[in-house]
Amino acid sequence: MTDFKKALSDNADAVENELSELLEAGDGPERQLVDAMRYSVLGGGKRIRPFLVMEAANLFGVSSRSALRTAAAIEMVHCYSLVHDDLPAMDDDDLRRGRETCHIKYDEATAILAGDALLTKAFEVLASPETHQDANVRTELVLALAKAAGDHGMVGGQMLDLVAEDHDLDVPEITRLQRMKTGELIAVSCESGGILGKASVSARHALHAYAHDIGLAFQIADDLLDIEGDEEQVGKKTGKDEAAGKATFVSLLGVEQARDQAELLSRQAMEHLEIFGKKSDLLKELADFIVRRSS
Amino acid sequence: MTDFKKALSDNADAVENELSELLEAGDGPERQLVDAMRYSVLGGGKRIRPFLVMEAANLFGVSSRSALRTAAAIEMVHCYSLVHDDLPAMDDDDLRRGRETCHIKYDEATAILAGDALLTKAFEVLASPETHQDANVRTELVLALAKAAGDHGMVGGQMLDLVAEDHDLDVPEITRLQRMKTGELIAVSCESGGILGKASVSARHALHAYAHDIGLAFQIADDLLDIEGDEEQVGKKTGKDEAAGKATFVSLLGVEQARDQAELLSRQAMEHLEIFGKKSDLLKELADFIVRRSS
Repeated sequence: MTDFKKALSDNADAVENELSELLEAGDGPERQLVDAMRYSVLGGGKRIRPFLVMEAANLFGVSSRSALRTAAAIEMVHCYSLVHDDLPAMDDDDLRRGRETCHIKYDEATAILAGDALLTKAFEVLASPETHQDANVRTELVLALAKAAGDHGMVGGQMLDLVAEDHDLDVPEITRLQRMKTGELIAVSCESGGILGKASVSARHALHAYAHDIGLAFQIADDLLDIEGDEEQVGKKTGKDEAAGKATFVSLLGVEQARDQAELLSRQAMEHLEIFGKKSDLLKELADFIVRRSS
Repeated sequence: MTDFKKALSDNADAVENELSELLEAGDGPERQLVDAMRYSVLGGGKRIRPFLVMEAANLFGVSSRSALRTAAAIEMVHCYSLVHDDLPAMDDDDLRRGRETCHIKYDEATAILAGDALLTKAFEVLASPETHQDANVRTELVLALAKAAGDHGMVGGQMLDLVAEDHDLDVPEITRLQRMKTGELIAVSCESGGILGKASVSARHALHAYAHDIGLAFQIADDLLDIEGDEEQVGKKTGKDEAAGKATFVSLLGVEQARDQAELLSRQAMEHLEIFGKKSDLLKELADFIVRRSS
């Protein structure tokens, strides 16, 4: 295993532990709710957003306790969005990371509520004094995450995605959709590291530019995996976009040009990190990993 | 119109305006999302939770701007919970306040996303510097609302309600369910006024005790309306609990004893406010109104 792969895997373990501690299983009749929340966030995933939080925070010497809680909160938001996205009224998916989706494992009502509760819990975690002693930092984290996840960010992007089923999108429209749907949460992961570290304006700009580029590269790589990936390895159904006649970067640009674009973005992302020197090596490797991953 | 009714109605107008300003209609293809959010929060309701925020804040001389934004945020959470509660997988309701529910007016996917976005927006509003200049206050508001609305509060109560369909509940269990499902959000409405006003511990305790009593009284009154209310006046289907064979305060205590209990709680609630003197008159009248309302 390369050093990078080991760092990614160690980080995933730490985040898994933190999530498990934050979502303590209860024992009342409402236990099913926490069970469904735990089912939806535990047990895997590469934890790329938490990795971004941890490594961005690391640039500024933030305590791992603060960074880990923030990382877990953002991962809760990511996982809630998957739970709701998988619902029959949305993408209607039965399989996620090779396991039954939440509404299949439990039922639709429980999946709706588990998603709602995860989103709410994320803000509870960020606002708690344990996350950072400075209330200004905590409130800035809450504000940044709410903006990234809300109607002008992730949820707005999901709405665009639904509306897009009746329209043919062009590249600028797809770019905007993906920036909202997945890019904003990736960006706020990096941004949160800067908030926790009270980073300078120029450092925040560099992180933002990096996040913008890897966000888009990540999505193009996802589109490529949907075309070329192995279903078992990817852990979810592939070929879905094509079957749905959905416009993607790949359908618009072609496989070759899409791949070139992703690699260009990845290299560009690394350049934005130059000001941080060696401390940003793992973030640079992530930019590379994102466009080469097979799942 | 009595002075109380006028105060309640003026407050509802002010909250309606604030909500409308906070949820500005967009013009992109994702406009449908904001339309559905606005549809779900605008156009009526008694706005009891916002009234509690405003009047509790008023006890401590809080600026109306701070109180109004906080009131609007809590109302967004209340409305999101109704949108998700009305979904086919949950209560499957077509009618709410005499209008089509969100998933009937739009579609299920839009209703899920509109609810998600409203919940997220509530935290964005609370964390924004415009809500209060002191970040400690803002983060305390976020934390209190997240706890009240999450798995140990409102959403946990909704889960209990779903699970309860298969069990016979007794009075302590119904009390716990309702405290979580509706009581916590009513409590945090009062609590938020105290947070904004940096109230003393004893003032917060008094408000909490008041909120606890009116929360329960409110729910008993709701159960009575479901049995005795006029469908047109109540604005939603009545007789639902009985038809569903659902245990309520009324089914367990009988109409007479339930009514007595509600009135006892209402009087008790007023007594908790004695320490605030005349400034709390409208909150006292609200405790009375809650058990006498016809919708």
